[in-house]
Amino acid sequence: MAFPRPKPTTGETLAMERASPPFNVRKLAVLMHKSEKDLARKERFMAEIARTPAFRLDDIHDLSKDEIRERTMEKFAIMVHYVTNESLETFNLRMQLIGIADPAFWTRFGVHYGLFLGAVRGGATTSQLNYWVEKGVLGLNGVIGCFGMTELAHGSNVAGLETTATFDRSSDEFIIHTPHIGATKWWIGGAASTATHCAVFAQLVVDGKKHGVKTFVVQLRDTKTFQLLPGINIGDIGKKMGRDGIDNGFIQFTFVRVPRSHMLMKYTQVSRTGEVFEPPLAQLTYGALVGGRTSMVSDSANSAKKALTIAIRYGAVRRQFSSGGNAIETQLLDYPIHQRRLMPLLAQAIANGFTAHKMEEMYGELSSALETLEPNDPNTQDVLDKLKEVHATSAGLKAFCTWSCLSTIDTCRQTLGGHGYSAYSGFPSMYNDFAVQCTWEGDNTILSLQSGRSLISSYTDAIRGKKLAPGVSYLARPNVFEAKSSGKLDLEDIDQGWACVAANLVRKAAEDYERLVKDKGMTKEMAMEGCSQGRFVAAKAHSIGYIFRMFKSALEAIPAEFENEKKVLLVTCRLYGLHQIEEQAGGFLKYGYFERKHLDAIELEVNDLCAQLRAVAVPVVDGFALSDHIINSPLGRWDGQIYEAYFDHVRRSNPLPKIHPYFERLIKPLLERQPATDFGGPEMRTELDEEIAELAAEAKRAKQTNA
Amino acid sequence: MAFPRPKPTTGETLAMERASPPFNVRKLAVLMHKSEKDLARKERFMAEIARTPAFRLDDIHDLSKDEIRERTMEKFAIMVHYVTNESLETFNLRMQLIGIADPAFWTRFGVHYGLFLGAVRGGATTSQLNYWVEKGVLGLNGVIGCFGMTELAHGSNVAGLETTATFDRSSDEFIIHTPHIGATKWWIGGAASTATHCAVFAQLVVDGKKHGVKTFVVQLRDTKTFQLLPGINIGDIGKKMGRDGIDNGFIQFTFVRVPRSHMLMKYTQVSRTGEVFEPPLAQLTYGALVGGRTSMVSDSANSAKKALTIAIRYGAVRRQFSSGGNAIETQLLDYPIHQRRLMPLLAQAIANGFTAHKMEEMYGELSSALETLEPNDPNTQDVLDKLKEVHATSAGLKAFCTWSCLSTIDTCRQTLGGHGYSAYSGFPSMYNDFAVQCTWEGDNTILSLQSGRSLISSYTDAIRGKKLAPGVSYLARPNVFEAKSSGKLDLEDIDQGWACVAANLVRKAAEDYERLVKDKGMTKEMAMEGCSQGRFVAAKAHSIGYIFRMFKSALEAIPAEFENEKKVLLVTCRLYGLHQIEEQAGGFLKYGYFERKHLDAIELEVNDLCAQLRAVAVPVVDGFALSDHIINSPLGRWDGQIYEAYFDHVRRSNPLPKIHPYFERLIKPLLERQPATDFGGPEMRTELDEEIAELAAEAKRAKQTNA
Repeated sequence: MAFPRPKPTTGETLAMERASPPFNVRKLAVLMHKSEKDLARKERFMAEIARTPAFRLDDIHDLSKDEIRERTMEKFAIMVHYVTNESLETFNLRMQLIGIADPAFWTRFGVHYGLFLGAVRGGATTSQLNYWVEKGVLGLNGVIGCFGMTELAHGSNVAGLETTATFDRSSDEFIIHTPHIGATKWWIGGAASTATHCAVFAQLVVDGKKHGVKTFVVQLRDTKTFQLLPGINIGDIGKKMGRDGIDNGFIQFTFVRVPRSHMLMKYTQVSRTGEVFEPPLAQLTYGALVGGRTSMVSDSANSAKKALTIAIRYGAVRRQFSSGGNAIETQLLDYPIHQRRLMPLLAQAIANGFTAHKMEEMYGELSSALETLEPNDPNTQDVLDKLKEVHATSAGLKAFCTWSCLSTIDTCRQTLGGHGYSAYSGFPSMYNDFAVQCTWEGDNTILSLQSGRSLISSYTDAIRGKKLAPGVSYLARPNVFEAKSSGKLDLEDIDQGWACVAANLVRKAAEDYERLVKDKGMTKEMAMEGCSQGRFVAAKAHSIGYIFRMFKSALEAIPAEFENEKKVLLVTCRLYGLHQIEEQAGGFLKYGYFERKHLDAIELEVNDLCAQLRAVAVPVVDGFALSDHIINSPLGRWDGQIYEAYFDHVRRSNPLPKIHPYFERLIKPLLERQPATDFGGPEMRTELDEEIAELAAEAKRAKQTNA
Repeated sequence: MAFPRPKPTTGETLAMERASPPFNVRKLAVLMHKSEKDLARKERFMAEIARTPAFRLDDIHDLSKDEIRERTMEKFAIMVHYVTNESLETFNLRMQLIGIADPAFWTRFGVHYGLFLGAVRGGATTSQLNYWVEKGVLGLNGVIGCFGMTELAHGSNVAGLETTATFDRSSDEFIIHTPHIGATKWWIGGAASTATHCAVFAQLVVDGKKHGVKTFVVQLRDTKTFQLLPGINIGDIGKKMGRDGIDNGFIQFTFVRVPRSHMLMKYTQVSRTGEVFEPPLAQLTYGALVGGRTSMVSDSANSAKKALTIAIRYGAVRRQFSSGGNAIETQLLDYPIHQRRLMPLLAQAIANGFTAHKMEEMYGELSSALETLEPNDPNTQDVLDKLKEVHATSAGLKAFCTWSCLSTIDTCRQTLGGHGYSAYSGFPSMYNDFAVQCTWEGDNTILSLQSGRSLISSYTDAIRGKKLAPGVSYLARPNVFEAKSSGKLDLEDIDQGWACVAANLVRKAAEDYERLVKDKGMTKEMAMEGCSQGRFVAAKAHSIGYIFRMFKSALEAIPAEFENEKKVLLVTCRLYGLHQIEEQAGGFLKYGYFERKHLDAIELEVNDLCAQLRAVAVPVVDGFALSDHIINSPLGRWDGQIYEAYFDHVRRSNPLPKIHPYFERLIKPLLERQPATDFGGPEMRTELDEEIAELAAEAKRAKQTNA
């Protein structure tokens, strides 16, 4: 390649990267966005918010917590417009985009529309739902909600929550009460300064008897004055790792009375006389959890794509060290180790993206089934089975996808070297905002173990001859896998490899569990805890295999007119599967699916696939279709002019004050300070010691003279 | 165990954990702090800063960037007192503590005393050093330094820096100049608002010829007025991921003149007439880099210990879920999976701590050797060999210890569930402050590859019959390792296992390198890049094995009177070695050191070791001897009263404003908003469509009538 000038500019370098991709970028984008229609909608959303002043993003790193919270409410007012005028499907797609552009706002919005309204929709009877809709809950007219589940001392163990809701028959009311500090509602998003109502999870108590945790809508503030209502004590939770744009708070209730009708009674009912009717199928209430997890799988893919867009564009234009006599330094992306750091993550993000589409589809089907389910419906068992499968799958995927995204963000940050540490690179806030995904809505470790527990149960079912759901059917045959002894591995071989390792790990966990119960006499619960490490690694292998399978099956469904785009996705899919094998090589060797020679060959092929993907990496991330406004990083700009933009951004954001704020008070005295005359200083000490020696000698002489 | 009350308080729970440790906590602390004297000094430092108002830590999460920077200078004034009155050894120990209590201040202080003064000490001739000492550099009297190495477009490639220092013979001056935006000095700590002088790294140019990068002391600001001097353009770099207490800035020089004597000339000299004398042994200048890396190994251990103290105390007092009919919920630490998450990290932090001691010792010896080295000294080659070994060892350890610490901090955060996301837990700032350690003073990936390159070179030396340094002597024999076929593995077996895997990985990388040179005809540099993944994994295995060996040898040196303390450290050491084997199982199976049955046995033993260490985990972290002030997390308090302290801390830090700052402007209009009458709304549309249908029908009728 001959350059007109000794060194191409960063912009020119990026243009060269885009010069002749072996596929159509827009067609690749369509595949990764499900459809042309979805892609176009996303582009419209991006254009809309780019022109909305409240959605300005370039200054967010320098706003204080209070300023950013205030701006959240400006955005709220705008988004309300959309929600009352567009379909749920369109709205969900819009929220996906908001999730990566502005996670704190996404959370504040989601707390009302997802959690609060979701709790009401899911838990209210028809008349109750009508009541809240008439009150204005859909358009925030008179009701801004928050979601009061977590307490200071209880998070994961929802059944152990200690806030009480005691039925007072005489007044037909519930008395909501926080019995001690540990039962304080904690982390409640929106409570600190923006909510009027709360969906409170509390122990239902009737006539001294506990009936478990139910949901009660409790008003917190007067809607005219915004003053706290009597009995409500609210505080601000303050600074967090990220998402400071949402006002998390704590709430303490002191004998707060709400009408009986404020308990959501679709499942459990309390009559006027205090009779409690429990639901026949409590499991159906789990459906709501799956929605949140599904959205986190897709958010993991999208956030990783955002991080990778920046890291890959930067890696393409950043040059460092020249090899040999070359005057032009080498692009970071041309270093094999840089490819090794980023290309497998790129493959993973794309794999997770296709898995998220599949997960959304499964969730959509499940939701319809749940909504149309009538009491005593003959399909009930089928729906419950489906729910169980989706529940377990979403649990494992939520955990491993959010973990892998968090780690992708930080690896991307590190590939920018020092510049990744600048707030303006976008990575610090991306990491800090995303980090909460690993612990909220089901702590990842607990969810992984749930997934592992479900896998053991499926394996046990298989042994007993029960037919398994398609996603876990491979568990029935841990012994039948055999690797190709020669020739190149195809996608099917990789798929079988993952099935082999996952099936063997599940079998091992199940056998450990049995052993603990039978030989060690443990209770079932203790034995489950005893094999938790086994459950964990089994769930991890299952999830990786599942993602690979979803990616592979998405590729198989690609229409013929996308031939060139499919080719690059095939490279990506192979890289995902093979790189993950390298990472988990122990399992493949242990269960004999591969020998050393296979792994040596895989290492070479991964190197090669990384190089192949690197060659098209810039057009591939262009296919993620993220505008500069959403990327919000001068180092990841579309035009590649990173240094000018970064310099300009830093300078604009940090004007130097005309008068130094603490020079006179602190720096000047330091500069003009004279070292204190110190009696104990070395010179003084030497002098003193000499005097002592003389005095001592004199005393000695005097003593000798006297003797 | 019978409890007097149904549920022990968190304070009581922690007291029970400490009731009867099978060792003396203070004696364990002495071992982990090298000596009683060092431990006592650390305790004194903690007491001193706890009573210094400027070192208040509980409010740091709620200070703005400007406030926290101002406080940095308050601390500076206090610390100057110590540095002029205590030995370097004591000072270094104090700085270790400051490093984990207050990383931003540590950095500002280190920029002057470590980097700026280090550059002057290391690079100045005797008369030059005297000049700067007389100017007041030791006590900041008239000189506050910063370190101008990194540029916007060049970090790792120091030789590629583009700032120029052109000799002007007529005036006997150098002209310092920033030729373009990419050559702007960037990230310069202290430059934005607190430094008067800068050690500038620039290309020496004499008579149009470049002589490489040298160091020049350039004054930035007038010391009386603090105004920027002519030709100096400085800006504030602004918000960063962490360490906002240090004022990083950028600097652009526009034809700034400094006297010739401001170039540091210990190694390269420029005479009055412009003759350039190059040093015979440029490598000796690398000595300074090793110091920074050594301190980062120890900081990694100390920061991990701080994180683990919080996570383990929290895990001991936090209860969640009760098993069976037990009314008392289970302590998190009693869950095997929780032990699996934390105990290996505890073992790793302790292993890294002992390795840091060893590293400090090696560095101390090297520094003495370098300082006493005379020109043409017969020991020169020995010292160079030693330097090479320490350089390679510190490079690998810096990379893998900082990575493991960063990951420890985030895992610890996640074990606190949602509470780890609160700023007041301490984890967010700990992570954000520490994160820079992975990319500064040698990017970790680049350092790992340097370590790998050095391992290949040692292996090649061994093949050629050269005797290797003790740290890498095992590389000479990749074929002779054989695992015990039966019986329990002892520490020697584990050591041999790591040596086997590392030796084989180094051999593989070396063979790949040879193959690329010979069979593929690559240049040596290209081949080195081509085997970079191999170098990377080899360096990782070498570093883990090295840490294990340092830990093991430290244990062997423990005196007999520490028998009980040694026992718990032996458990820790086994756990470190075996858990790391589990993590890297692929290598052990691939090179045949272990078979599947060994790994199954190791899994069980790791479970068991985790349980053993869990039983003493609280007293062990007590042995880290970190005061509540340093811990700075209500959730990790010594007394275990976490909920009360956390609640109190959150409330004190976030008083609610008397007047809501944006209710009137933003929330009230939202609450009272009437849905806009929308011509396109569904009702309206239905009406319109009915009208259209009628009009159309009418038109049709009219048409038919007309026809």
